[in-house]
Amino acid sequence: MSRVYNFSAGPAAIPDAVLERVRSDIPDWNGTGMSVMEVSHRSPEFVAVADKAAQDLRDLLDIPDDYSILFPQGGATLQFAMVPLNLAAEGEVVDYVQTGSWSKKAIAEASRYCEVNIVADSADRNFTCIPAETQWQRSREAAYLHYCANETIAGVEFPFIPDAGDVPLVSDMSSTILSQPLDVAKFGVIYAGAQKNIGPAGITLVIVRKDLLGRARPETPSLLDYAVYDKSGSMSNTPPCFAWYVAGLVFEHLKAEGGLEKMAERNRRKAAKLYAAIDASGFYSNPVKEDCRSRMNVPFVLQDASLDAAFLAQAEEAGLANLKGHRSVGGMRASIYNAMPEAGIDALIEFMREFERTCG
Amino acid sequence: MSRVYNFSAGPAAIPDAVLERVRSDIPDWNGTGMSVMEVSHRSPEFVAVADKAAQDLRDLLDIPDDYSILFPQGGATLQFAMVPLNLAAEGEVVDYVQTGSWSKKAIAEASRYCEVNIVADSADRNFTCIPAETQWQRSREAAYLHYCANETIAGVEFPFIPDAGDVPLVSDMSSTILSQPLDVAKFGVIYAGAQKNIGPAGITLVIVRKDLLGRARPETPSLLDYAVYDKSGSMSNTPPCFAWYVAGLVFEHLKAEGGLEKMAERNRRKAAKLYAAIDASGFYSNPVKEDCRSRMNVPFVLQDASLDAAFLAQAEEAGLANLKGHRSVGGMRASIYNAMPEAGIDALIEFMREFERTCG
Repeated sequence: MSRVYNFSAGPAAIPDAVLERVRSDIPDWNGTGMSVMEVSHRSPEFVAVADKAAQDLRDLLDIPDDYSILFPQGGATLQFAMVPLNLAAEGEVVDYVQTGSWSKKAIAEASRYCEVNIVADSADRNFTCIPAETQWQRSREAAYLHYCANETIAGVEFPFIPDAGDVPLVSDMSSTILSQPLDVAKFGVIYAGAQKNIGPAGITLVIVRKDLLGRARPETPSLLDYAVYDKSGSMSNTPPCFAWYVAGLVFEHLKAEGGLEKMAERNRRKAAKLYAAIDASGFYSNPVKEDCRSRMNVPFVLQDASLDAAFLAQAEEAGLANLKGHRSVGGMRASIYNAMPEAGIDALIEFMREFERTCG
Repeated sequence: MSRVYNFSAGPAAIPDAVLERVRSDIPDWNGTGMSVMEVSHRSPEFVAVADKAAQDLRDLLDIPDDYSILFPQGGATLQFAMVPLNLAAEGEVVDYVQTGSWSKKAIAEASRYCEVNIVADSADRNFTCIPAETQWQRSREAAYLHYCANETIAGVEFPFIPDAGDVPLVSDMSSTILSQPLDVAKFGVIYAGAQKNIGPAGITLVIVRKDLLGRARPETPSLLDYAVYDKSGSMSNTPPCFAWYVAGLVFEHLKAEGGLEKMAERNRRKAAKLYAAIDASGFYSNPVKEDCRSRMNVPFVLQDASLDAAFLAQAEEAGLANLKGHRSVGGMRASIYNAMPEAGIDALIEFMREFERTCG
């Protein structure tokens, strides 16, 4: 079978050009006579890969010098514990915005280490909107303010960066990082699992303002302490080298493609097209408030849910894979990260119209 | 360049047949039209990979039913914290054998959570032997007894499995797992980073006796709790899918090659040959006590250290890569895990003889 259009929410599609390079680097990478999986992380060859990945990322996101780039393991889920362990002392209050499944999970884990104040919650609106910042009930002395910039399940995205004032702003950007330019200087910590816009699962990106390093609680396991990664260039132990290498290829690819301005433009266009097709139809619908619809994850339901199985089967046959919605919400979900080409959106829209015409 | 003989201590060589399969699975894996890096960990296709990997491993090591197989991230180094957090209450005494750099690191991390009793220490012998079990100073009520079965840096390996009695026996087997059959029933917990005998860095193997699950301290981060992995089939969050898949291919390959009896026989032969060549020479030497020389990591020094650079350069030219010893001990080190073919040992011995003849 040839390549399909892969709408998986994550692990998600990786650019074809990157996969081609990965393939051609096996089993002999750069004339070393080894694959990249088989060389020491301390070898000059791998250190060059690691350094270039960090520099390319710094270029792409225009990351200021007073921020450190870390590559721990454990995904965003381990960050749910690492953030409070690194940024808040025992008993301190931390502020969280609850806008969907992922922020809920972050809150549950943080509650084990801190007193969590939920500043706003859209659960009563089924997570289909982002509460206006003017209504947030912030604490007077929070150690940080946390939000999830894009909730992959309900498909809701913050259309703004919260104004945290002097409090460190922390964001889970797993499913939106690198989709558009970002003013990193507004944040204390940005973290992201790799498996949406960065590379294969198994590596995590953490961007941390350097003055926030070195504050981990005494009982923090060494590998959960941001400062340990900062001091060692994320090599205090063997890092996930292969995932790091693929992430580096993705960063290089994004630069070659024109950087994040270009990605933003393309992602806006892709999402606008797909939402327009959904809205124009009486057959498909998306419940999310218009100004906070996700540019990355587009959930939609069929008017008649009994057609779901037929929709998915026929889509699969048409080379449109992984459109099934998350088990907690049902329906469909098209995840359209950077690696989804515009032609994939066109093919999906065309298929949706045809399905509506024949089955609607 | 063609493939070299790669003597890296880790990340280490992966069998050629496995790499060929990895290559051919990109970008279209099993006719899915996607690579294995791009499919959801919850997809039937990936769940089948995960289940088969666990079953093949269970077959290879003959793991009893009352043991659970977990695949966390973070390598052996994160286990240095996970072991005490999961097995010992605050203030409890734990017993550790100190036989080299890796057990020292394990002890340092455990000391942050427990009272560590060092039952035996070979530091005064420069870690060139394993202290006899009869001389160990065990605690009366240790929560567990920990040892590192093979120390990669000094090249020293336990020639026996300690008799822990009723106390759970815990072993770091990163560099010896799968090199020979193992009586798993003697252990409470066995753990191993992948990047020696399992697959690419970024996935960790933990084999844990089920009655030891569910004892994690209340403050243990969720992703550091063995029970969380056990309950979710190591999928409470997105696992390192690619590394898991490659590990599965390695397990399958080992079974096809005849299993661990076959590996043990081959590894014994490989190590015996290399040590014999070293011992027969007046030019090379290995300081480790004969009965505990590692079958996996063979460090040796040249009589005249000023020839080290020439040795390494000429070896590299001869297609013998990564023979440089660990920075803490200098000299040379040949790591000869399962994936090192016997022909690689023969080529190394031949090169060593020739180098001695021309430069000695």
